[in-house]
Amino acid sequence: MKSIIDRYERELVDSVIPFWESHCVDREHGGFLICLDRDGDPYDTTKHLWMQWRTVYMFAALAETRFAAGKRERWLELARQGFRFLVDHGRDAEGAYYFALNREGEPIVAPYSSGSDFFAVMGCTALFKATGDPECREAAIASLQTLLRRADNPKGRWNKRLAASTQWRAHDTCMATVNLGLVLGEGLGLAGLEGQVDEAIDTILERFWSEAHGVILENLGASFTPDLASPEGRTVCPGHGLESAWFILQHAEKNDRPDRIEKTCEVVRSTLEHGWDREFGGIYYFTDLLGKPPPELAWDMKLWWVHCEALVALLTGYRLTRDARLLEWFEAVDEWTWKHFPDRDYGEWFGYLNRRGEPTHMLKGGKWKTFFHLPRALLECIEQMEKL
Amino acid sequence: MKSIIDRYERELVDSVIPFWESHCVDREHGGFLICLDRDGDPYDTTKHLWMQWRTVYMFAALAETRFAAGKRERWLELARQGFRFLVDHGRDAEGAYYFALNREGEPIVAPYSSGSDFFAVMGCTALFKATGDPECREAAIASLQTLLRRADNPKGRWNKRLAASTQWRAHDTCMATVNLGLVLGEGLGLAGLEGQVDEAIDTILERFWSEAHGVILENLGASFTPDLASPEGRTVCPGHGLESAWFILQHAEKNDRPDRIEKTCEVVRSTLEHGWDREFGGIYYFTDLLGKPPPELAWDMKLWWVHCEALVALLTGYRLTRDARLLEWFEAVDEWTWKHFPDRDYGEWFGYLNRRGEPTHMLKGGKWKTFFHLPRALLECIEQMEKL
Repeated sequence: MKSIIDRYERELVDSVIPFWESHCVDREHGGFLICLDRDGDPYDTTKHLWMQWRTVYMFAALAETRFAAGKRERWLELARQGFRFLVDHGRDAEGAYYFALNREGEPIVAPYSSGSDFFAVMGCTALFKATGDPECREAAIASLQTLLRRADNPKGRWNKRLAASTQWRAHDTCMATVNLGLVLGEGLGLAGLEGQVDEAIDTILERFWSEAHGVILENLGASFTPDLASPEGRTVCPGHGLESAWFILQHAEKNDRPDRIEKTCEVVRSTLEHGWDREFGGIYYFTDLLGKPPPELAWDMKLWWVHCEALVALLTGYRLTRDARLLEWFEAVDEWTWKHFPDRDYGEWFGYLNRRGEPTHMLKGGKWKTFFHLPRALLECIEQMEKL
Repeated sequence: MKSIIDRYERELVDSVIPFWESHCVDREHGGFLICLDRDGDPYDTTKHLWMQWRTVYMFAALAETRFAAGKRERWLELARQGFRFLVDHGRDAEGAYYFALNREGEPIVAPYSSGSDFFAVMGCTALFKATGDPECREAAIASLQTLLRRADNPKGRWNKRLAASTQWRAHDTCMATVNLGLVLGEGLGLAGLEGQVDEAIDTILERFWSEAHGVILENLGASFTPDLASPEGRTVCPGHGLESAWFILQHAEKNDRPDRIEKTCEVVRSTLEHGWDREFGGIYYFTDLLGKPPPELAWDMKLWWVHCEALVALLTGYRLTRDARLLEWFEAVDEWTWKHFPDRDYGEWFGYLNRRGEPTHMLKGGKWKTFFHLPRALLECIEQMEKL
């Protein structure tokens, strides 16, 4: 185990963090340049709020770890300048975060997704936790209120679904609640959410988890029952299932719920059985539960974040149960992941591989990839292994 | 050439038309079931208006060809029942076509794209041409008016781009105008559009075509100049370039513009030089002009429609110029296409192949594939070869 911990630590400290520290800070306008090519050169200066706030979160969270020795103030300063830029430029008149700003901080894409507000809460909370700055706490609570206000219709007036459409219940909404609960509970000391978090976990384990099919369904019908007649209702996203699982495992450990731990480890094993590519290895991005055509063209690609979340889920589950099947799966996912994703020439990881594991994009950051899933997973994996 | 014509005819008559005739008609509710799996089994009953109207267009257009002998009335009836269903159920209070209806005809996705109206004009016009039914002509003109009303902001209130964003000029808007000009000129006898069509062609050949780079750019900045600092401005879609090219070639032939024919054949050759995959063959879906990361995950996939449009562009260009380089390209594209796309077991073609030419989806129809590009291309290719 020691050699695996070393490998994860070296990757975090020598490859991932230096890549982002060297390349992502916009010293001219503030905030971050996230759309970075293989060597760190920006290929787009658009500032997507999801990605900006995730980057604030990660620098702030890292500042609270042992890896921050001698670097804490530098990392906090990077997070703070991001916070400043985003709070000053990022919100519309009603307090919702836009989807994207241009480099100078002018809004260019409307706030059509409350994901921006979600990651603002996460980023502000992590920065408050690290600095104690009351402005960060206030900003976190303001965005939390925006998020709750938008809960019934997160896409707002950009929602294209009409009344006669199936009113889908989304797994990722529950997953986000559990994640928020973990971060807010620790960071802001708000206990009021606990009931909602508990309900979200039950909904995932009792409703979205289909024991009959051995997967978490991404979408349920209006009454939280499976609707397998349409592609939405048959969609499985193994990466989301695995990410949800480790949020639940950590919550169950803190709240002494061995029943949930056992069930969630079954979710992890079964999701991997379903999502693992037996021909080329790696975990699919999306599948159709019944093997019908998935709507996503790139369904069979292998994405870095899916593998990151799998590693965390497997190590957390193994530490809590010592189930040898989880360790075997960890070894398989670890081997495939480290063979295919790291970029040995320029540091950091490729994000997008084809089914065979060959990179289709050389980018290190983009509209949907930043300094987030990979360093968070490396940190979490190191912590799980150290506790073993 | 005779054996190639035979091959194209057999594919159209024995494989493509029977597949759709047997499987796509919704005899219970009207309209079409387009989301068909490999064997014709529907995997989704959503009725996307773009695809519905394209199907009306194709049955009506086919009824006007020599292949309709003994089948004309049957095909017109299929088009008519689609027309009836769509006109009765498809429009909102302002006359815009929704993006999607459910199987019963209730609107489920808002009219966020004027593409629905565009293909309504095409479908109604083709059906008017074949039947002379004044209701079809009226419906075509009504949707044309909707299209013109929406021209400044085709996405309406679902447009997420804000004022500070680059106001992109889209090549496909000009391409659609040229296509509409060809179909309306023939079908409705409306000459008023001719000036706009002429202007659209000039804009494509003088602005979107970048001689320096040898490609048609998908997006230009607000003043119709290249903006290569962002992914949008660097996007090349070879399939769109080739589709535009054959629309322009047919227009130029009718309007006696040899200057445009010569230039457009250069566009065709050069687009293929740029878009052809020299390692695995086939034409990429998208490229970044400067080789930076394309935003589309599936950029390196090989799509049926791209290859269909290439075949038409090459044969039309070759017939008009007898340029041997176009014939050589036709032979290469024809060989790759026929080797990889046709489904010899269930008929019709696979739509989505990975870079190596292996199908990633078994579907024959879906949200973006119906009875349209393939039969239209087979018809156009047969016509070009017969004239040779």
